[in-house]
Amino acid sequence: MDVDLLIKTLGDTLEARREAAPESSYVASLLNKGEDAILKKVIEEAGEVLMASKDGDKLPLVREVADLWFHSMVLLTWHGLRAEDVLAELKRREGISGIDEKNARPQG
Amino acid sequence: MDVDLLIKTLGDTLEARREAAPESSYVASLLNKGEDAILKKVIEEAGEVLMASKDGDKLPLVREVADLWFHSMVLLTWHGLRAEDVLAELKRREGISGIDEKNARPQG
Amino acid sequence: MDVDLLIKTLGDTLEARREAAPESSYVASLLNKGEDAILKKVIEEAGEVLMASKDGDKLPLVREVADLWFHSMVLLTWHGLRAEDVLAELKRREGISGIDEKNARPQG
Amino acid sequence: MDVDLLIKTLGDTLEARREAAPESSYVASLLNKGEDAILKKVIEEAGEVLMASKDGDKLPLVREVADLWFHSMVLLTWHGLRAEDVLAELKRREGISGIDEKNARPQG
Repeated sequence: MDVDLLIKTLGDTLEARREAAPESSYVASLLNKGEDAILKKVIEEAGEVLMASKDGDKLPLVREVADLWFHSMVLLTWHGLRAEDVLAELKRREGISGIDEKNARPQG
Repeated sequence: MDVDLLIKTLGDTLEARREAAPESSYVASLLNKGEDAILKKVIEEAGEVLMASKDGDKLPLVREVADLWFHSMVLLTWHGLRAEDVLAELKRREGISGIDEKNARPQG
Repeated sequence: MDVDLLIKTLGDTLEARREAAPESSYVASLLNKGEDAILKKVIEEAGEVLMASKDGDKLPLVREVADLWFHSMVLLTWHGLRAEDVLAELKRREGISGIDEKNARPQG
Repeated sequence: MDVDLLIKTLGDTLEARREAAPESSYVASLLNKGEDAILKKVIEEAGEVLMASKDGDKLPLVREVADLWFHSMVLLTWHGLRAEDVLAELKRREGISGIDEKNARPQG
């Protein structure tokens, strides 16, 4: 799978929808509602990930994690950021052991 | 950036660490603690995304979203799933308008 | 303020509404939708508490904490429990220093 | 049970601990760490309520709801508010049907 292209396409799509009329797409509508509406979705989807995990069914879990990542990307778009910024941060941590990484940075 | 390779590497790394001794890495330790410990991190990181967004500083927000995605990947690993499963689901939705997508599937 | 009576009244009201037709009240409707719908509200309201706290306005914060406690009580009702059970647990911890309490019980 | 006295005692205890040395109590330590540390606990405890509910065991659920309410009270204390403010808000809504209440106030 060409994930590179996928991520870029998703990012471009989100940015394009940002300019669209609110009624034309779910993303444009959500961006138009503003930060709190987006954050509400992010925390709601995180909660649904917990529930799906506890239910133990894999397909719903995949869909809820997809919802969570998707709404995180909407949040990034709202802040003028892109999924690539997050992936660059994940790449930066590559090769650093998780425990070292946790220890190396300030708590928060 | 070769995101495709990155995602694959992250997935492989997570799976490799799954077998490692708990004290050897943060991920192995977390997988060893089990589902509830991982879910606790997922919801905690989602909360930190909210706080970072409200604080309005972009770098911390990118780091918190990275934490959220990373711990979601640990959860997928715990369930024997991979990031590719989520990206395939996101790709499946591509081209479907967000509103249509939301309307097409059962609530939950 | 007669908080004792208030809590009892709230508990009785919730239980009465449990039997009511779904369309007759918000609580009956939510109880009818079931556990996941209630949990979704609990986590959503917790997220709104975070946002209201970050916004720093006291009246919205009080309202969001009220929403959080209220939906927690709906959850208790769904499980056949009451607010008194939680208050009894809080009372049990009274006089135990927080740190001792945390240390005394198993992590989770 | 004298809930009125309990709530008052809890509120007084929280306020007294606010002034105490950080190492002397869990609450003083948490208040000293500041808003983000408290909010992190609130969202974490909300997540644990979800997990306990899904697990279906009543005693852990009661304990997690107690943790959630307790940390909400710590947050109120941090903002110079008290549990009574929330209970007054809940009382204000008494007699208003939940659906009417939801419809009557602005979304958020």
